Amino acid sequence: MKENGLDKLRNFLKRESLSGMIIPSNDPHFGEYIQDYYKVISYLSGFTGEAGTLVVTLEDAALWTDSRFFIQAEIQLEGSGVELKKLKTPGCEPIEDWLKERLTPGKQVSVDSDLYSLSAYRSLKKNLQPLDLVSVKDPFSEIWQERGVVRSEKIRFLGTHTTGENIHSKHSRVVETLGLKGEFLYLVSACDDVAWLCNIRGNDIDYNPVPLSYAAISRENVYLFVAEGSLHLKEKNLLEAEGVSVMKYNEFENFIADFSPSAVRIAYPDKLTISKYIAATSKGAEFIPDTVRGGVVSSLKAVKNPTEIEGFRSAYILDGVAWVRLLIWLQKRLLEDSPLPTEADVSDKLIELRSESEDYIGESFAPISAWGPNAAMPHYEKDENKPVKLVKRGFLLLDTGGQYTFGTTDTTRTLAMGEISEEQKTDYTLVLKGMINLSSAKFPSGTRGAQLDFLARGEICKAAKVYFHGTGHGIGHALCVHEGPQSIRMEENPVQLEPGMVLSNEPAVYVEGDYGIRIENTILCRNWKTTSWGNFLDFETLTLVPIEKTAIDKKLLGAESALWLNNYHKMVREILSPLLNEDERIWLADKTSDLD
Amino acid sequence: MKENGLDKLRNFLKRESLSGMIIPSNDPHFGEYIQDYYKVISYLSGFTGEAGTLVVTLEDAALWTDSRFFIQAEIQLEGSGVELKKLKTPGCEPIEDWLKERLTPGKQVSVDSDLYSLSAYRSLKKNLQPLDLVSVKDPFSEIWQERGVVRSEKIRFLGTHTTGENIHSKHSRVVETLGLKGEFLYLVSACDDVAWLCNIRGNDIDYNPVPLSYAAISRENVYLFVAEGSLHLKEKNLLEAEGVSVMKYNEFENFIADFSPSAVRIAYPDKLTISKYIAATSKGAEFIPDTVRGGVVSSLKAVKNPTEIEGFRSAYILDGVAWVRLLIWLQKRLLEDSPLPTEADVSDKLIELRSESEDYIGESFAPISAWGPNAAMPHYEKDENKPVKLVKRGFLLLDTGGQYTFGTTDTTRTLAMGEISEEQKTDYTLVLKGMINLSSAKFPSGTRGAQLDFLARGEICKAAKVYFHGTGHGIGHALCVHEGPQSIRMEENPVQLEPGMVLSNEPAVYVEGDYGIRIENTILCRNWKTTSWGNFLDFETLTLVPIEKTAIDKKLLGAESALWLNNYHKMVREILSPLLNEDERIWLADKTSDLD
Repeated sequence: MKENGLDKLRNFLKRESLSGMIIPSNDPHFGEYIQDYYKVISYLSGFTGEAGTLVVTLEDAALWTDSRFFIQAEIQLEGSGVELKKLKTPGCEPIEDWLKERLTPGKQVSVDSDLYSLSAYRSLKKNLQPLDLVSVKDPFSEIWQERGVVRSEKIRFLGTHTTGENIHSKHSRVVETLGLKGEFLYLVSACDDVAWLCNIRGNDIDYNPVPLSYAAISRENVYLFVAEGSLHLKEKNLLEAEGVSVMKYNEFENFIADFSPSAVRIAYPDKLTISKYIAATSKGAEFIPDTVRGGVVSSLKAVKNPTEIEGFRSAYILDGVAWVRLLIWLQKRLLEDSPLPTEADVSDKLIELRSESEDYIGESFAPISAWGPNAAMPHYEKDENKPVKLVKRGFLLLDTGGQYTFGTTDTTRTLAMGEISEEQKTDYTLVLKGMINLSSAKFPSGTRGAQLDFLARGEICKAAKVYFHGTGHGIGHALCVHEGPQSIRMEENPVQLEPGMVLSNEPAVYVEGDYGIRIENTILCRNWKTTSWGNFLDFETLTLVPIEKTAIDKKLLGAESALWLNNYHKMVREILSPLLNEDERIWLADKTSDLD
Repeated sequence: MKENGLDKLRNFLKRESLSGMIIPSNDPHFGEYIQDYYKVISYLSGFTGEAGTLVVTLEDAALWTDSRFFIQAEIQLEGSGVELKKLKTPGCEPIEDWLKERLTPGKQVSVDSDLYSLSAYRSLKKNLQPLDLVSVKDPFSEIWQERGVVRSEKIRFLGTHTTGENIHSKHSRVVETLGLKGEFLYLVSACDDVAWLCNIRGNDIDYNPVPLSYAAISRENVYLFVAEGSLHLKEKNLLEAEGVSVMKYNEFENFIADFSPSAVRIAYPDKLTISKYIAATSKGAEFIPDTVRGGVVSSLKAVKNPTEIEGFRSAYILDGVAWVRLLIWLQKRLLEDSPLPTEADVSDKLIELRSESEDYIGESFAPISAWGPNAAMPHYEKDENKPVKLVKRGFLLLDTGGQYTFGTTDTTRTLAMGEISEEQKTDYTLVLKGMINLSSAKFPSGTRGAQLDFLARGEICKAAKVYFHGTGHGIGHALCVHEGPQSIRMEENPVQLEPGMVLSNEPAVYVEGDYGIRIENTILCRNWKTTSWGNFLDFETLTLVPIEKTAIDKKLLGAESALWLNNYHKMVREILSPLLNEDERIWLADKTSDLD
């Protein structure tokens, strides 16, 4: 029998006298997506979901993943010898317990030193006791012969007409926010933080328009580390003109090791690999953790400036036009006698329509186009080999987003394909009502996302149903569609919502084997009013896509939410109509007409 | 000039070479109310509010208190030489900073060792550095000559027909929940925890029907420490028959010092004084903190059993009858030509009407009866010397509760005394709508109060107003009207809501100098439904008092909330009518009729 990846990893472990290895779905930059080069879990187990942790001992192997990927993992792990562990379900033991059951005290468990963050490593080391946790230099290149290489593409430089702030100003604000007295070197590993700081974009990661890169910030300088040859001379000159020292990607570890030992090293410990930490402190420099949630750079990046907000608005207008054209196309296809489109046809068509704009760069995440029971998987990925044709009943759930030169979009609509049941109508209405509740919230400065989550989540609970994911994630400006540190979730997150933060608003319900409903708008937190009670904030909705009305139970929706919907549709109509032809305008007028 | 309390304290500080003292509004049991004996702050500064911290140095003095007491403190501190520090307002420095500005490093600041908890002391000691924090034995008896003595009254024993669980069973559950292997002694200082554990009630504290008491729990025994002579022989026998060892209140420190040194001492560190901690560990016993929020006893006490819940229901029926009669009386007084009643007349009348029941014991807190601008003070205390007559316009806010042998009540109604403005009507409707939103919530098991708070708070935010207190506090069973560990507040509290927990639901709005609106029901968390999404909970409303309808803006309230209100009023009518005479029934039928 041919030796597979797991066998080879076990041989490596035996040779190094290690008893196990924990493999996260990370690269050294801790973004959401990783290059194929880092898809070690897929190589070893066959599981291709974005989030999971594979744990391998000499005898056993198991993969921990969250509810988004349960169904996918069940299918992909079949026959792999890897057991599926469903996070947050009854009886799902923690990784530490699973290992302690299998290994005797003192045995060594390993992680790749460039795939584990300092904080995760420290907490795991403590929780694994009496087992011993050690870090090793990348063992995968050796055992994975077809691994390939790290890919790097050309970098774009964005002017202040797009970013609204030059590098010098961002650098000053980082230094000011850090508020340190002595010499320091702040280490930035997250590619989107680097991209924001240096006003650059790249194409090294699927969906996230970032270059694989690092940055280091001293009081005087910004050092940027990118792959050799990824910068055209023009861009390099623009960066250097703003005082950025451009260096090679592979020089980062040596640079942070060799920099003045009297400069304290600072980083957000969730976003710094052990390998980088070891390098940074190897010649005696002191290390202090950045305690701002998400890190100082992320927290500044989260608050969008007026130029960035205008970019978002423009992106949502372009996206709205593409959506309207898609919905018209889909309606026609449903009425024709010719074969119905497949799920993929729909999302492909939207890409085609988005591409009509010169400012469209690509999708902001893998589009989800899921009919019927497929939509019950919150992060459904289509199977290329088994295209699913739409059926003229039930719901089609379409969750897609675009990257534009000046903004990032993320929109979900649930479309009635024909007849829908009373239960579906009730659920659709409750999900919509939840989305509207959150959209209409007014709240005091200082409010945290966890305080608002239930405005959206609570409606579907009235049907004794609930969704197990968050309601809202931050969205980057022409950057990652999932961006921290803010969120609107059940879980406590101390980050307060601030004017300028952009978030998704996406309550949902999933009925396994039957249907899924999610309605998602993007909302901008903004100042509303100041009174003697303090300052109040609210949300502006940025998304401009009609919301399916045929699935609404009007009585259940209620007058207040109906008014919100009518006003929303009026806005969509008024903003998009000038960009549409007459047929399209007529169609839109109908789809955005008031609820009776 | 006569030497006042502050002078005497400063003389004590000088004599002991201390530079300052921090005086909390506590007794050694950390309840909400304290006996006059412990009202040191009032003696020293004149401030009589329930919550505050007085800090005294040789030169300066300041009192930190929260928004409930700002107005009261401003009045009472005038001319005292004590500066008012308004907590959670801009520019209010922490106590630690205030002291560090005034004292040089190394200076000693003191606290009374029996008025500071172990956790508060430890955290203060750390935060006060480079100042030194020390604890001293009670200095107040010496300087406060009119101090009096600790008062103790007779103790009642409650049978299982009232408590639903005997002491033996409670003891077993505490031991089981602690889950410890070796010998232990669990220390209970909170009088309501002791009262729950030993099925006793007392009368040593205003409004809280508890005896000043301690308990200690070993695997085999419950030791109860109460004032000598506070137990009749019959009650003592009943306790001893259930295996309780009754001991003297003053013996507690010696007992916990002398108990087997091999028994580990456990307590909730927020509810154990330094003095007790020092005693418990004085002979080498190990101490471990109880890490359950509020402590194990409180967390068991918070979940009411069916007998306790029935007791609550009965108490709310009796209270509802008294309220109905009060509202009828008040309506008559408003229509008569004779002088209008004062605020105090109204709350006194309610006490009189409650007293018609044999099961009424007393008020559960100082009743608030506040007309017009007085109601803008959330915890308004009437000035005995300046009775305020009602006026036939605006709102009367009435927040009162009763202690009954089988339950505790806490109800607020805001009553229109005549004409009210449009702004008042809007605010009243939003507050009511918030109260209804929370009352109607359905939520998954595992939900925390902070997730639900905004359902109530969010409505009044739509008028760019907000209240700065919590929305809901736990309520004890024939015990303290404010009971932990559960809460419904803006602030994160990790305690999950569980079936059997009883809470208040009291959104509000305060317009300084003009009016205050608060509507408060008591709600019981209960199981609602289990589906494939998990278990869901909801609330049952226990309060049975009509809600003022004349101040409602029906359009703003909305159809859904109007339906809730109509159903609520139907329940009030159906439950209370059989207990009323015909005139009262007719009146109630009108007040609880459906909104058009």
